[in-house]
Amino acid sequence: MKSDVILLGHGSGGRLSHQLLDDLIIPTLSGVTPQEQNDAALLSVGGARLAFTTDSYVVDPIFFPGGDIGDLAINGTVNDLAMSGARPVAISVGLILEEGLPVADLQRILQSMNRAADAAGVQIVTGDTKVVPRGKADKIFINTAGIGVVERAYEISGSGARVGDKVLLNGTIGDHGMAVLASREGLELSSDIQSDSAPLNGLIAALLDALGDSVHALRDPTRGGVATTLKEIVQQSAVDISLEEAAIPVLPTVRGACNILGLDPMFVANEGKLLAIVAPEVAGQALQVMQGHPAGAAAAIIGEVTGEEAGKLYMRTAIGGRRAIEMLAGEQLPRIC
Amino acid sequence: MKSDVILLGHGSGGRLSHQLLDDLIIPTLSGVTPQEQNDAALLSVGGARLAFTTDSYVVDPIFFPGGDIGDLAINGTVNDLAMSGARPVAISVGLILEEGLPVADLQRILQSMNRAADAAGVQIVTGDTKVVPRGKADKIFINTAGIGVVERAYEISGSGARVGDKVLLNGTIGDHGMAVLASREGLELSSDIQSDSAPLNGLIAALLDALGDSVHALRDPTRGGVATTLKEIVQQSAVDISLEEAAIPVLPTVRGACNILGLDPMFVANEGKLLAIVAPEVAGQALQVMQGHPAGAAAAIIGEVTGEEAGKLYMRTAIGGRRAIEMLAGEQLPRIC
Repeated sequence: MKSDVILLGHGSGGRLSHQLLDDLIIPTLSGVTPQEQNDAALLSVGGARLAFTTDSYVVDPIFFPGGDIGDLAINGTVNDLAMSGARPVAISVGLILEEGLPVADLQRILQSMNRAADAAGVQIVTGDTKVVPRGKADKIFINTAGIGVVERAYEISGSGARVGDKVLLNGTIGDHGMAVLASREGLELSSDIQSDSAPLNGLIAALLDALGDSVHALRDPTRGGVATTLKEIVQQSAVDISLEEAAIPVLPTVRGACNILGLDPMFVANEGKLLAIVAPEVAGQALQVMQGHPAGAAAAIIGEVTGEEAGKLYMRTAIGGRRAIEMLAGEQLPRIC
Repeated sequence: MKSDVILLGHGSGGRLSHQLLDDLIIPTLSGVTPQEQNDAALLSVGGARLAFTTDSYVVDPIFFPGGDIGDLAINGTVNDLAMSGARPVAISVGLILEEGLPVADLQRILQSMNRAADAAGVQIVTGDTKVVPRGKADKIFINTAGIGVVERAYEISGSGARVGDKVLLNGTIGDHGMAVLASREGLELSSDIQSDSAPLNGLIAALLDALGDSVHALRDPTRGGVATTLKEIVQQSAVDISLEEAAIPVLPTVRGACNILGLDPMFVANEGKLLAIVAPEVAGQALQVMQGHPAGAAAAIIGEVTGEEAGKLYMRTAIGGRRAIEMLAGEQLPRIC
């Protein structure tokens, strides 16, 4: 650890986050190696094959166009389970409330969680509530943990990408991050940008039903965005990926807001997007499945897996150039989820 | 909800906490009725019988005599699983860090979590780390969720107490709460009070191995203390319980500190204690099992279940009086876990 104290960047999902995880948290807490890091842990418990995951949500503001901290907390955990090929079943909810939080705000968030759980077909089965004095938290923090059941014979992880595979994305990038940022900063320019917060378990079930183990890797590009998530995959799978810049869907409003603020949408968080890495012979079919699903109407094939140098991520620009993409060190957008 | 805003007392484990749960959180989040509230949810997933639970930890200070927020977070979740008769298997860890937290403090806490997990025989399998700006949290908050496997044919819950049953406690009460409070306030008077933070799954396995389904109810008296936990049990089981004041073990230092501060040790939190409600014919054997275990050396039979008026908790005093015990409305000791 290069810093003696925790920095905001340690929570960014980028390079500092990975250092904190790899150098301190994972070696201290357990024997899991960094390469085994996936969105959910796979366990065999009582004869059942389970996926288990957790996330805490500290987004600021707690309400934003297209969602709030409540549906984010449900969708995020549902999606982490689904990315492992599991069917999400049960969710726990841990609330940390700041003294003085309006009860009406809490009620609105709980209702949103309930609707999100219904939409994803999961049950909230257990919970916990703590209250801290005014000024010791920021309105509300939510932790969700989730259990899914792994019903398929093959495992999906970040290490399954193979040379020749195609990289698919189910829609436009950066919507969530820019909706939260615009809302936080009161930016007029992007008042019509909505978070993409959505459950992806239905879309993933459709993909796996149609394509089976030709789906080699799945991951949701949340904190750190598409670039960071693909960097994780190329490192886990020891491959390279080349992206086609022109193929990556970005809404004009999001691109405009990013330009004005000096942000790269490739690093901006999404909450209803997935990256699927599939065998080349099924890529067309995968695209059709995605485009036929409400959560994938704007899906696209955005790149392919190459094998030249392990662990590299490249972007081919519209005018034919090629540049390597690295993880950001620190925080582009703090408290985005 | 009588208040428009969240009060500290809503996190106390007492009457306000129960109102928040019963009037808002549970009806909004799911169909679980308040009577079904136990320390863990029981689920059937993929053919396995599981227990699933979560708790967030916001204790202040994060280090105190006898423990820290790290072992507390592991032991608390291990114990919630064990109270359902489950064998704790896997734990998730969600960290919310305040910018500026010394990395050395984080490392000490993680090491403590790892030791506690080893001692309880559980694995930390997945996690998440968020960082919030300075002043938006208080050093570190930890959420743990846990999965246990239910290997016994009978269920243990708070609703199993029957008239005639004996109430057992595995040791002295109030140690954790007073250790934290003394440490927070810098009280000299109780510098030798240590938190009782400990895993109880080993003791519970020993009890269930010896007594099977003659163990009718188990619960750990954490927030709200022994009094609040027993009030929950009499309400869930629709029975009355009468306690013998003289039989309830309290360390002289804890009693002294409580007297000076005007606190009732019956309402002070414990983190290594369990209440076991067992059939009268096995009470002696249960006591022997407890006293033969390192976590139960000071165990005692502290009362019995009577059936006169459903939902009442009585204390028989040393001089022969009898008084009803009610839950506290609000917060005796905030941020005790």
